[in-house]
Amino acid sequence: MYFGILAIIFLHLLTYMNTQGKILRLTSFGESHGKAIGGILDGFPSGIAIDMDFISTQMRRRRPGQSRITTPRKEKDKVEILSGVFEGKSTGTPLAFVIQNEDAQSKDYSHIATQFRPSHADYTYEKKYGFRDYRGGGRSSARETAVRVVAGALAQLFLRQKDIQIHAYVSQVGNIATLKSYKEMDFTQKENIVRCPDAVVSKQMISLIEEVRDAGDTIGGVVSGVIQGLPVGLGEPVFDKFHAELGKAMLGINAVKGFDYGSGFDAVAMRGSSHNDIFYNDEAGRVRTQSNYSGGVQGGITNGEDVYFRVAFKPVATLMNSQKTIDNQGNSVQMEGKGRHDPCVVPRAVPIVEAMAALVVLDFYLLASAYR
Amino acid sequence: MYFGILAIIFLHLLTYMNTQGKILRLTSFGESHGKAIGGILDGFPSGIAIDMDFISTQMRRRRPGQSRITTPRKEKDKVEILSGVFEGKSTGTPLAFVIQNEDAQSKDYSHIATQFRPSHADYTYEKKYGFRDYRGGGRSSARETAVRVVAGALAQLFLRQKDIQIHAYVSQVGNIATLKSYKEMDFTQKENIVRCPDAVVSKQMISLIEEVRDAGDTIGGVVSGVIQGLPVGLGEPVFDKFHAELGKAMLGINAVKGFDYGSGFDAVAMRGSSHNDIFYNDEAGRVRTQSNYSGGVQGGITNGEDVYFRVAFKPVATLMNSQKTIDNQGNSVQMEGKGRHDPCVVPRAVPIVEAMAALVVLDFYLLASAYR
Amino acid sequence: MYFGILAIIFLHLLTYMNTQGKILRLTSFGESHGKAIGGILDGFPSGIAIDMDFISTQMRRRRPGQSRITTPRKEKDKVEILSGVFEGKSTGTPLAFVIQNEDAQSKDYSHIATQFRPSHADYTYEKKYGFRDYRGGGRSSARETAVRVVAGALAQLFLRQKDIQIHAYVSQVGNIATLKSYKEMDFTQKENIVRCPDAVVSKQMISLIEEVRDAGDTIGGVVSGVIQGLPVGLGEPVFDKFHAELGKAMLGINAVKGFDYGSGFDAVAMRGSSHNDIFYNDEAGRVRTQSNYSGGVQGGITNGEDVYFRVAFKPVATLMNSQKTIDNQGNSVQMEGKGRHDPCVVPRAVPIVEAMAALVVLDFYLLASAYR
Amino acid sequence: MYFGILAIIFLHLLTYMNTQGKILRLTSFGESHGKAIGGILDGFPSGIAIDMDFISTQMRRRRPGQSRITTPRKEKDKVEILSGVFEGKSTGTPLAFVIQNEDAQSKDYSHIATQFRPSHADYTYEKKYGFRDYRGGGRSSARETAVRVVAGALAQLFLRQKDIQIHAYVSQVGNIATLKSYKEMDFTQKENIVRCPDAVVSKQMISLIEEVRDAGDTIGGVVSGVIQGLPVGLGEPVFDKFHAELGKAMLGINAVKGFDYGSGFDAVAMRGSSHNDIFYNDEAGRVRTQSNYSGGVQGGITNGEDVYFRVAFKPVATLMNSQKTIDNQGNSVQMEGKGRHDPCVVPRAVPIVEAMAALVVLDFYLLASAYR
Repeated sequence: MYFGILAIIFLHLLTYMNTQGKILRLTSFGESHGKAIGGILDGFPSGIAIDMDFISTQMRRRRPGQSRITTPRKEKDKVEILSGVFEGKSTGTPLAFVIQNEDAQSKDYSHIATQFRPSHADYTYEKKYGFRDYRGGGRSSARETAVRVVAGALAQLFLRQKDIQIHAYVSQVGNIATLKSYKEMDFTQKENIVRCPDAVVSKQMISLIEEVRDAGDTIGGVVSGVIQGLPVGLGEPVFDKFHAELGKAMLGINAVKGFDYGSGFDAVAMRGSSHNDIFYNDEAGRVRTQSNYSGGVQGGITNGEDVYFRVAFKPVATLMNSQKTIDNQGNSVQMEGKGRHDPCVVPRAVPIVEAMAALVVLDFYLLASAYR
Repeated sequence: MYFGILAIIFLHLLTYMNTQGKILRLTSFGESHGKAIGGILDGFPSGIAIDMDFISTQMRRRRPGQSRITTPRKEKDKVEILSGVFEGKSTGTPLAFVIQNEDAQSKDYSHIATQFRPSHADYTYEKKYGFRDYRGGGRSSARETAVRVVAGALAQLFLRQKDIQIHAYVSQVGNIATLKSYKEMDFTQKENIVRCPDAVVSKQMISLIEEVRDAGDTIGGVVSGVIQGLPVGLGEPVFDKFHAELGKAMLGINAVKGFDYGSGFDAVAMRGSSHNDIFYNDEAGRVRTQSNYSGGVQGGITNGEDVYFRVAFKPVATLMNSQKTIDNQGNSVQMEGKGRHDPCVVPRAVPIVEAMAALVVLDFYLLASAYR
Repeated sequence: MYFGILAIIFLHLLTYMNTQGKILRLTSFGESHGKAIGGILDGFPSGIAIDMDFISTQMRRRRPGQSRITTPRKEKDKVEILSGVFEGKSTGTPLAFVIQNEDAQSKDYSHIATQFRPSHADYTYEKKYGFRDYRGGGRSSARETAVRVVAGALAQLFLRQKDIQIHAYVSQVGNIATLKSYKEMDFTQKENIVRCPDAVVSKQMISLIEEVRDAGDTIGGVVSGVIQGLPVGLGEPVFDKFHAELGKAMLGINAVKGFDYGSGFDAVAMRGSSHNDIFYNDEAGRVRTQSNYSGGVQGGITNGEDVYFRVAFKPVATLMNSQKTIDNQGNSVQMEGKGRHDPCVVPRAVPIVEAMAALVVLDFYLLASAYR
Repeated sequence: MYFGILAIIFLHLLTYMNTQGKILRLTSFGESHGKAIGGILDGFPSGIAIDMDFISTQMRRRRPGQSRITTPRKEKDKVEILSGVFEGKSTGTPLAFVIQNEDAQSKDYSHIATQFRPSHADYTYEKKYGFRDYRGGGRSSARETAVRVVAGALAQLFLRQKDIQIHAYVSQVGNIATLKSYKEMDFTQKENIVRCPDAVVSKQMISLIEEVRDAGDTIGGVVSGVIQGLPVGLGEPVFDKFHAELGKAMLGINAVKGFDYGSGFDAVAMRGSSHNDIFYNDEAGRVRTQSNYSGGVQGGITNGEDVYFRVAFKPVATLMNSQKTIDNQGNSVQMEGKGRHDPCVVPRAVPIVEAMAALVVLDFYLLASAYR
């Protein structure tokens, strides 16, 4: 018998595991058009100065309406910390924070109360939970990623003290890709609006996004990331390899379709004699590798070289043009397009990628410290 | 101060999380040349007939020495179940199983007691744990994947009863890729030795592997997988999305460098108007999508369409040719090549990919059942 | 070398695991005099009508200032749910809730900024975290239990639909104990202020508490609980026995010193021939036991009989009289007494015991459902 | 509708969570009369010398047939470590160990294949899992505790290096209790067969057990424990308090009915002015308390004083005399008595209590280390 039919009758399933991490754990809550979104970050070390300006900076990089190539929606996204901070420093107790949902134009979304938007989560939520908060996509909205940016910024406050640096940037939009490696990028420079540090290519990317936007369409892209200054020994050898947790964290971001690290998918066509990273001792007596196809991870454990990786994003599913779909009674319907959306998600995804990377790194960092 | 230097002095770190899964949990143990490898599968439903023949079949597909394009090493890999089965059926209590390590030629590995093999885990283990079982790579050896194949076969015994089918196959070796989609593959046919169901391309792949082997070199490849017959509603929406757990499980396999699902990295260059999967009702009244770029997952939750994905493997790091490296005193050394290795890992990786997929699917299946 | 000395220099440890439960998980946050306290309840089934009146009723039973035998402090304790509810019903996504901290008289607590109150957590927090939010005990304040009452009330909304009833009551204050078993108690009657359903004994308890209060002192007590209507099969056999999780949940409540269930500590002096519960079939064909010394749990798994248990509370550590102690510089100091405290904690602990029991029961209920 | 009836038809539930601990995790397997029992201890630090003699010593203290007041059954209980040890030291990878089941007299148990032994887990297992391995109680047999003793001994190997001492002893059998506190006990002396270090009382206990045994009956008892040398700062403040995890670990031991620590149930009748532990600085400048009613834990966190606790055990359910019960068809039956059982479980429970305490302490120790 068809399980799906049963599902709509019997199953009122629910979400589980809105928590990221092992000993540094972020639990996230909130729907796009509910009262608020937010989270609890538990397991954060005590005594860390909480730099609200840095949190705001990261939030601004994610915020809608930041440039002409993002959605014109405006969200203030003011972060309020409710607990875990005393006299400006973390106390070691749970850091709870909320972001109120303001200016929610709920009527904008009334048309999707009964219709399933193509390549959105409307249908799967309705089946899994029996009903859904349809306003703005509810829990499945990418608005939830603001929570991750807050928590990731907190994690970065700790990591910066250990000289661990995390940088992400846009390396491809549609078929336009930078050919430069992360080593040729200058992360100290002011970001451009598409967040690709390759000045020439960034202009082409922006033109492409504008062209796509004007056509009422959307386009995919790639965010690349690099983590520098990691100690040797982070990651667990079998199931919880460093890159496996990193990959899961990236795949958990809305619209992500793929992840690779180091030589990645390019390794497939390589031979071992080229791909192997030869060890040597540098002048400081440190063990290094001549090449870094391993991407800073060997046997699931960091080796002290740079960890670099790519995250593939699909084109945004919300279009300005109308599309055919069905409603929850099974009727064919024509769904109207919607104006306030991102034509390409990657510029705003950059701080989200950094945030998820920071959460993974700090979790492994603390775990490794348990065995010092 | 450089953390790595400290590490070798102070840090005796350890592995953590040799466990896969949330409520179906596999805990794995064992080193390549210790007494035995094995695992405990906890959370497995009671009353399931334990088909030892099926387990043996999956083990044979992973086994070294199975064909002329794999390592000539011989391992019997006889599985013994110690608990959790009574009168041929699972009792609901933990299923413990062991595979004795026989014919271990420990002297083969004595040369790596002090040397760090390039692109292996020798260096990272030595730094993380202070010392290591160097014989055959110890815990980092791909021999551990035999444990996963046993547990995955057990999971498949349950899933087969629910008509959930999992198939993996080799879709690329080096630069030779099949252009056929999984839908054109006939999984009922006898497998060839490279495990690519595209008859023409499989011959090219075998030739390439033989050529690489004869040159003392190794080469990468891609294993593709498909999961069919899934109910709607598996997966958790935020961090524990269906494809995020699947990706983590794949990235945790030795030598894996990348993962994508559905349209994957190809989505990057697509436009939303092409990429969106349009919903319709089929004759049976079931909600379906016309295309399936979503890869059977929307908002992290299965939608009843096929889940398909790719896993990228690097070229094997062990070479027949000698390589330069350093020893644990920092001296430059020339490391001898080794004859008994796989020139290409993907043919033997196919049952491992299936096993990890089965563990992820059954875990989500049971979790969803908690909320029926 | 003395670890404690090292601790104050090097260790800035932190809290971890502010989460209760396996698949129904409550994560709690907040300090007594911070902005707010609250929590996220994740894994709660969808489609449950959220009865705010029931939540308020439970909160009123916990609230300070409710009677002449509790602290005269006033807290409004208004619960605001931020997410996970749509059109009055749970959506299956995380239920976040906050309780603002109002009327906090921070100056009341300034004297404990540097002093360690006897039998409080001031010293252990200061050592564990390096510094602490001293206002009102910060995170260690029993104010945190309000969070548990909210979450427990939510769990009870589900359990009531399954005819699972949870009742707690005061069975002892100081040396005054009721001799009646839970079976003789009428839980439908209006509670008295000490929450002991034995009318005669309750008056003695109230007198004792008043006498203790007037002497500026405090006194301990016992809360007894009973869970009725449980299905057979909840609980896991080895480490996660039903009563082991229940006991842990009770021991996690502030001021608790002991837990037993069924025959409890009285079993020690009994013989097996008296203690064994003889099985029989009742008229409805159900398997029952003639006695219930097992307390409804056999081998860690519920057997369908009533689960009953006792929770021992110590006398409140905050006194109206002054006490000797030391400050964080090691100086001897005389600490002033404090007027606004509970002379006996058990009347207000009754809804907290019910709440923790409800969280444990629903967690096991959902887990067992995964394997139906 | 009655859930239990449904259960036997539809539910094939299963065990879950045969795992103890957060970052030091013991997963246990095995049935009383299956091939073997054993476990995997994951998260154990590397570089620890594995003293097999110490493990054997602890196993001998738990072993059946050790004295005239225990069951005459003989079990060799030889421990074999399969992984995680290299050149005599732990490698940081999972320590797997097995104990073969020898001399199992399966026919002894054939009579319970269909009958439910009073106050055993036969009925609850049959309902929870649909069927059960009835031989010797299968998974519910106390034989499983041998696994805990092995893991606990491993944990103690680490703790001894940190000068953390764990001692348990019998403090009560039936109505005969020692009046001495743990401070008056000499743990360096050779243990007597009842494991009560009070020489006079131990003789009375032994007489009582012999009398009970000769009457074909059984009797309960109390095991007391003390942990000395703990650093300040172990335990987590809210749900995972030090004593809450300790209590759960004890309540998870077969036949345990209650747990208290410090002043325990005696605290109920005390006043705060007597119960509060007054802080002072000792000559070495360490913060100490004059009394220790807190039992070494304040606010869920260790304060450096001794942690002491009591564990109540019920009388063994297996009797030499025959008893009335029912079979799985609901028929009344007379069950024959069985000769080879323990008349009192507490002498053999002493090393089990020590083992569970050691696992809890090391888990918290490592966790606290993550935040140094």
